[in-house]
Amino acid sequence: MSDTEIRYDVLGIGNAIVDVIAQCEDSFLQDESIEKGGMTLIDEGRAKQLYRAMGPAIEASGGSVANSMAGVASFGGNAAFIGKVHDDQLGEVFVHDMRAVGVACDIDGATSGPATARSLILVTPDAQRSMNTFLGISSLLEPTDINTELVGRSTLLFCEGYLWDIESAKKAIRYAMKTSLESGNRVALSLSDTFCVDRHHAEFCDLVAGPVDTLFANRDELLRLYETDSIESAFEQVGDQVALACITMGTLGSMLIDNGRQIKIPAYEVGQVIDTTGAGDQYAAGVLYGLSQGRPLEECGRLGSLAAAEVISHVGPRPLAPLSGITTDTAKVDARSWVSE
Amino acid sequence: MSDTEIRYDVLGIGNAIVDVIAQCEDSFLQDESIEKGGMTLIDEGRAKQLYRAMGPAIEASGGSVANSMAGVASFGGNAAFIGKVHDDQLGEVFVHDMRAVGVACDIDGATSGPATARSLILVTPDAQRSMNTFLGISSLLEPTDINTELVGRSTLLFCEGYLWDIESAKKAIRYAMKTSLESGNRVALSLSDTFCVDRHHAEFCDLVAGPVDTLFANRDELLRLYETDSIESAFEQVGDQVALACITMGTLGSMLIDNGRQIKIPAYEVGQVIDTTGAGDQYAAGVLYGLSQGRPLEECGRLGSLAAAEVISHVGPRPLAPLSGITTDTAKVDARSWVSE
Repeated sequence: MSDTEIRYDVLGIGNAIVDVIAQCEDSFLQDESIEKGGMTLIDEGRAKQLYRAMGPAIEASGGSVANSMAGVASFGGNAAFIGKVHDDQLGEVFVHDMRAVGVACDIDGATSGPATARSLILVTPDAQRSMNTFLGISSLLEPTDINTELVGRSTLLFCEGYLWDIESAKKAIRYAMKTSLESGNRVALSLSDTFCVDRHHAEFCDLVAGPVDTLFANRDELLRLYETDSIESAFEQVGDQVALACITMGTLGSMLIDNGRQIKIPAYEVGQVIDTTGAGDQYAAGVLYGLSQGRPLEECGRLGSLAAAEVISHVGPRPLAPLSGITTDTAKVDARSWVSE
Repeated sequence: MSDTEIRYDVLGIGNAIVDVIAQCEDSFLQDESIEKGGMTLIDEGRAKQLYRAMGPAIEASGGSVANSMAGVASFGGNAAFIGKVHDDQLGEVFVHDMRAVGVACDIDGATSGPATARSLILVTPDAQRSMNTFLGISSLLEPTDINTELVGRSTLLFCEGYLWDIESAKKAIRYAMKTSLESGNRVALSLSDTFCVDRHHAEFCDLVAGPVDTLFANRDELLRLYETDSIESAFEQVGDQVALACITMGTLGSMLIDNGRQIKIPAYEVGQVIDTTGAGDQYAAGVLYGLSQGRPLEECGRLGSLAAAEVISHVGPRPLAPLSGITTDTAKVDARSWVSE
């Protein structure tokens, strides 16, 4: 089968980022005025200053939707990715790591413009990650970067809310969503971050009421989207708007809302939580892989929980072990029961 | 105290390398004709070909003696490092990670010549690491790179056997050793690798009989140095030649030979061995730190074992937790008894 005949399970469009991960104490976040648990966009000057101040790090390919595509491929799915890197060493690392796990990633590094994006991620002793992202060339995504033929061949399109900060990238994503729907495919969106939801509230509401049929969000992002404190109210509203909502609740597990029907999914037990970077991304990977294979929704949710449990048990935002080796039968279910609050 | 007045506990001279670490099956090593457990020097073309073939990776600053200096600093010692990087992203990563852990590392990246060195490290399911190193600019170390004033201010000089592959680097190291001894300081050498010992046998014998007073080697490297199959005979010979020999024996622990007197050091228990990259380097870090603080030799050996146990419990060649937080009192001693064979 030639490359142009392959049908992809999931095509991701997102930031192409290399993570620079260091451990730190909570006092470091305070000294550097970093919002714990969030993602802050920083410019090159701040990136240099913060990098100088932070401890020894490891580098690992990241980017929210890119992480999810690596997860889908790790499960054995056919995944593809669209994003932008520079022709530099970190750009080479990003593209290598996508291809090495089996994601179709037809990106040539740009020879001019800003450097490849990096996110300076500080992991506190409670395993929480606080991200400080210099977007570099990743933010220059535009409609001409969207391979419409590839979009047409992909059962699911998965888009990153983080990309909504950039005008040309918004246009690129709207264009991709339109193309996907016109080809009879499915459109998924991740809300990415509470600050992201606040910054782009009207537009995110518009997307959820419009082209998006599958939504990924955590509890806080969902509450911000519907400007409510009641999770039950938010569940009801999102159930009326999208065909499938996948809402993560941390240690409480997750909730799938299938045309209004609520399905509770437990979290899986992890020996020691080391670094929560990538937990939501890998949850999405498991659900998207399951959906693409036509698995029952409850199993899709459990695959998401399993992938998230794998990634928080080590440093780095992507699976270390092939996810195709895990099954929902063999994993231990966390004793903590799901609480709807 | 100004920078030129600081006295350093240990000054390391070695390769400045960024490790690119991927997991693989044993069959991959066979397919790629890679010698398991060893270090193979590769050129840029082979580095590109092997990188394309290998799985997703993480990047972490490495280099044998550089890892040891990061370990000494992590214990709270004053460490410095001399080596060469290019002015590229991986060079920036290397220098950042040294400075971030507190190693004095006064390196400006070269703006011409080869790229910063990288080692493609393949970790098999048994946690063994097989290294494939493209030395790049690291191999261009020469006598003018040796800051003699810094050598004079460093209680211990620690040199990397791996550097012996390059003519100008040999001259640089011999020059540094001479300067160190003339300043009344101590000279340590790591034999680095069995292939290294084979390639440079006569010269390594000459160094051990000459300027080197403290030797680091594993069991196999020591046997090759003395061209014997009897570890007891090798212990006797090395005891006659150097003031202190520190011989690692993997899970069997290590042996310190203090002017001929043998001191057995146990290995420490590790829950799960994940990646043995850096085990020997961190053992050396613990011993060198202990020596620099005037600790009893048995305690120096135990600090080495503790540091090695920390580093093999996670991916990457340098400590994740500050080693200053571990003590020889709190650690559990491995139940396996030391066997002299």
